[in-house]
Amino acid sequence: MSWKEDLSAIREKIRKNEYNGHTAGLAPGRVQANLVMLPKEQALDFLIFCTRNPKPCPLLDVLEPGIYGPNIAPGCDLRTDIPKYRIYHNGGLLAEVSDIRDYWRKDLASFLLGCSFTFETLLLAAGFSMRHIEQGTVNPMYITNIQCKPAGPFRGPIVVSMRPIPASRIAEVVRITARIPLAHGAPIHVGEPAAIGIADLNKPDWGAPVEIKEGELPVFWACGVTPQAVAHASRVPFMITHAPAHMFIADLWDRDLMEY
Amino acid sequence: MSWKEDLSAIREKIRKNEYNGHTAGLAPGRVQANLVMLPKEQALDFLIFCTRNPKPCPLLDVLEPGIYGPNIAPGCDLRTDIPKYRIYHNGGLLAEVSDIRDYWRKDLASFLLGCSFTFETLLLAAGFSMRHIEQGTVNPMYITNIQCKPAGPFRGPIVVSMRPIPASRIAEVVRITARIPLAHGAPIHVGEPAAIGIADLNKPDWGAPVEIKEGELPVFWACGVTPQAVAHASRVPFMITHAPAHMFIADLWDRDLMEY
Repeated sequence: MSWKEDLSAIREKIRKNEYNGHTAGLAPGRVQANLVMLPKEQALDFLIFCTRNPKPCPLLDVLEPGIYGPNIAPGCDLRTDIPKYRIYHNGGLLAEVSDIRDYWRKDLASFLLGCSFTFETLLLAAGFSMRHIEQGTVNPMYITNIQCKPAGPFRGPIVVSMRPIPASRIAEVVRITARIPLAHGAPIHVGEPAAIGIADLNKPDWGAPVEIKEGELPVFWACGVTPQAVAHASRVPFMITHAPAHMFIADLWDRDLMEY
Repeated sequence: MSWKEDLSAIREKIRKNEYNGHTAGLAPGRVQANLVMLPKEQALDFLIFCTRNPKPCPLLDVLEPGIYGPNIAPGCDLRTDIPKYRIYHNGGLLAEVSDIRDYWRKDLASFLLGCSFTFETLLLAAGFSMRHIEQGTVNPMYITNIQCKPAGPFRGPIVVSMRPIPASRIAEVVRITARIPLAHGAPIHVGEPAAIGIADLNKPDWGAPVEIKEGELPVFWACGVTPQAVAHASRVPFMITHAPAHMFIADLWDRDLMEY
């Protein structure tokens, strides 16, 4: 077994800063999660924001201020167990770091949000290919012109991830991903990128562009990077997140999130 | 059309205190909701509690402190538009009133939680009979020995509602109600009341007992009265709720909550 399939080995490497890369393909079958940490002062409004925007922000786990041990991965430490973090100050990116113990404050509440890696596992099992995996890149993410429902100071656009899907199998990806609301659920848009404000699919805001082959349509799912666009739009005073595609790996299995 | 089918007429009667009865059967097809109001100081912990206990506490709408106009019913006032409220002080029932404007505080956050009336509508449409409706009573609710996952000061038992279902159709009620996680979703227990701490089905903690006929099993769903049992167990300093079965009626339709 490669270390990439061994959850304990992966976590040890990440915690010791021996691995700082993205987590796609690591610990296959385990749920991966987006991280948001916010001071207690903003935590209630952000949690309300998540309940109003469950597609981009599906709540896997919420930790009370001062707690850094997630319920969905007993024994882990959210301050060290993610390969790369981003520190935001007044909505701007202040630093990208591999350990946040220097930034930790006892008033920080933590939010772990579902991630598209979960539905990718299920789509791969159903015989779909993921173009960004074939290309060995991080899949493309785009800021849209669809606005989240605001809560308190939190407002901003929905970010989507995109995967090319054969036209004949669109209904199938909808049915499969709809079963996992905790991993963004069904797509929010199929085809017609301009209609949601994406001018050029070759210029993603995060990740790398992927080829769309003859007979395929771009399919768009709400993305857990949305809170980072919201931090920017809302000029949130202080926020810590994971770096895109550098996720927290939970003990949960992807199949645990299936609703049917 | 009877006033009982006219949403505006119902709301006017409730607001003017001309109707203070339970809301079962009113405005058929509209979503009804459980209410919880808590001071800002407890709001974050209670919202975390709801995310950890989505079966008894499915979040339909959360209002920031000071707001009493629900998003799911524009123009309504949560302080007057429920037929009967309960005021809890240190976990004990202080008063039952038909209007809470005298108790309203600007630091109160409001939570509207899904209600079993929504899945009853779908079960009736699928040809099930609801014994408590046949009997003209409020359906029986029981405190169980299953504990909610705690958050901050909030802890306590899950309350369930019970409906007798023919043994041959148990799978069908599971499939139908699983499609509506925002109305408590699938049952949490089938048959064997003693296994969840219910000593006598004829002695419900709220509502009235119902007859279980030959060939039927008692089926138990998580219930939105759970926060009231939690208020008691946690000795919450101050909380306002609806009175059991006296719900808030939203603009949403039951079918809007179907996930599939």
